[in-house]
Amino acid sequence: MMYYLFNENIVRASDALVPVTDLALLRGYGIFDFFRLIGHKPLFIDDHVDRFFRSASKLRLQCPLSGPELISSIMEMLQRNRIKDSGVRLVLTGGPSPNGYSIGQPTLFAINEPITPLPESHFSEGIKIITCEYLRDIPEVKTINYLMGIYKMPEIQAADALDVLFHWKGMISELTRSNFYIVNQEGAIVTPATGILEGITRKKVLGLAADFFTVDARPLHLDEVYAAKEAFITGTTKKVMPVVNINGHLIGNGKPGTTTRKLQFLFQEYIEDFLGGH
Amino acid sequence: MMYYLFNENIVRASDALVPVTDLALLRGYGIFDFFRLIGHKPLFIDDHVDRFFRSASKLRLQCPLSGPELISSIMEMLQRNRIKDSGVRLVLTGGPSPNGYSIGQPTLFAINEPITPLPESHFSEGIKIITCEYLRDIPEVKTINYLMGIYKMPEIQAADALDVLFHWKGMISELTRSNFYIVNQEGAIVTPATGILEGITRKKVLGLAADFFTVDARPLHLDEVYAAKEAFITGTTKKVMPVVNINGHLIGNGKPGTTTRKLQFLFQEYIEDFLGGH
Repeated sequence: MMYYLFNENIVRASDALVPVTDLALLRGYGIFDFFRLIGHKPLFIDDHVDRFFRSASKLRLQCPLSGPELISSIMEMLQRNRIKDSGVRLVLTGGPSPNGYSIGQPTLFAINEPITPLPESHFSEGIKIITCEYLRDIPEVKTINYLMGIYKMPEIQAADALDVLFHWKGMISELTRSNFYIVNQEGAIVTPATGILEGITRKKVLGLAADFFTVDARPLHLDEVYAAKEAFITGTTKKVMPVVNINGHLIGNGKPGTTTRKLQFLFQEYIEDFLGGH
Repeated sequence: MMYYLFNENIVRASDALVPVTDLALLRGYGIFDFFRLIGHKPLFIDDHVDRFFRSASKLRLQCPLSGPELISSIMEMLQRNRIKDSGVRLVLTGGPSPNGYSIGQPTLFAINEPITPLPESHFSEGIKIITCEYLRDIPEVKTINYLMGIYKMPEIQAADALDVLFHWKGMISELTRSNFYIVNQEGAIVTPATGILEGITRKKVLGLAADFFTVDARPLHLDEVYAAKEAFITGTTKKVMPVVNINGHLIGNGKPGTTTRKLQFLFQEYIEDFLGGH
């Protein structure tokens, strides 16, 4: 049996139930965060909980638990579930609304869910993605709005792609659930700096990259992407994942490049150090 | 005690509970519709249920009830609650998701909620609104995504406004929950034709207006709005409501105009005929 955190209590998963008047159900209003466990150890939980509270504050949602209380409740949930290599999804919604529009007393929950590992070939051979012209609402906040990404799923699947890269008039932002980067012909890593969610993996990877490469966080156009030597994405489950095909255009020679592979190695090493140190 | 429709059953309001794994809670993925009762009679229920099914189909959500079954379940819920002049909110979500992203078996519910009547002065003296540059996701579908509208509430309240009018580079679309119109200096009613949700009230009001006025459904720029003789909005609870002030600019002489008042009268008469005929 699985246990979830629901408001201030650890409850059986089947008892974690939200009233139909919740503003997430009526108006899609809420924020979340997601981190994974390696073995039983949570990865970068402090960064994720910090961002969760920053997102909450931007949307004027008061979390019923403080940061330390939230972490200790999550640890208690994990203790009860004991699933290795799983993910934890924290959600805070607008809560039951008195009139179907104004914010109520927020509902907090944390789900502990198994992660289906992505195929090894995604990491070793790279993935295909497609693009979509779309401006995200409040991109700097990790809201629950994934309407467009899910709406586009049939198109993504028809193209045998993994996900969709958003751009606006050719200016790249990010994928539905990952940040995006290229390595240009000069060998610099270029990644959009604004209009994106600042990923926890992005922060770690850019930190590691800075010791070896030029990192340029600035506006990035689709034309520059097609002309790149390499492209890759980062995210909690994607880690560092090569992108070798965008809308049917091969990136570089269509194989993961040396910079991407170096970053995969550096990030893997960083995670091992992080876990070893805990 | 209130009763709600939940999937295929009429349940006590407190028993209408959604699992935390529902895609509306995790990803804001769902659609809805809303209609009101006058006395105990539902207004334009067939139009709203039709649109509900069209929205569902656009988002690949299969409703567990057919149209006639849904209407008969709603009528049964209303029969049990017996609240005059209330509203009915129908919601269909992505349902519990196996992986936190793909669509599951949709959750259907209908809430019967009291409507707090808007102040009479809103209809007789008109309202103030503000604008916001924003492009809605899939505007032609009545999704539950109201993130931006709710996010903007403090700004709306600080301006003593009722709501926010969305535009993109000056091109008007609609308000969060109403359609928008002007009456220009030539006396024509102008309203955006695309990038909007086609309101049920809009359809009825434009039908009535056509016998008396020139109606021009076409792109509309904010400059043309400021230069208009009159402005108004329509919606299920707003009916036909004059707008007399936008971002502090008076529209016309700052009082509801004759065309708006004529439409208020025609719509009121139309509703009375509709109810009398049922």
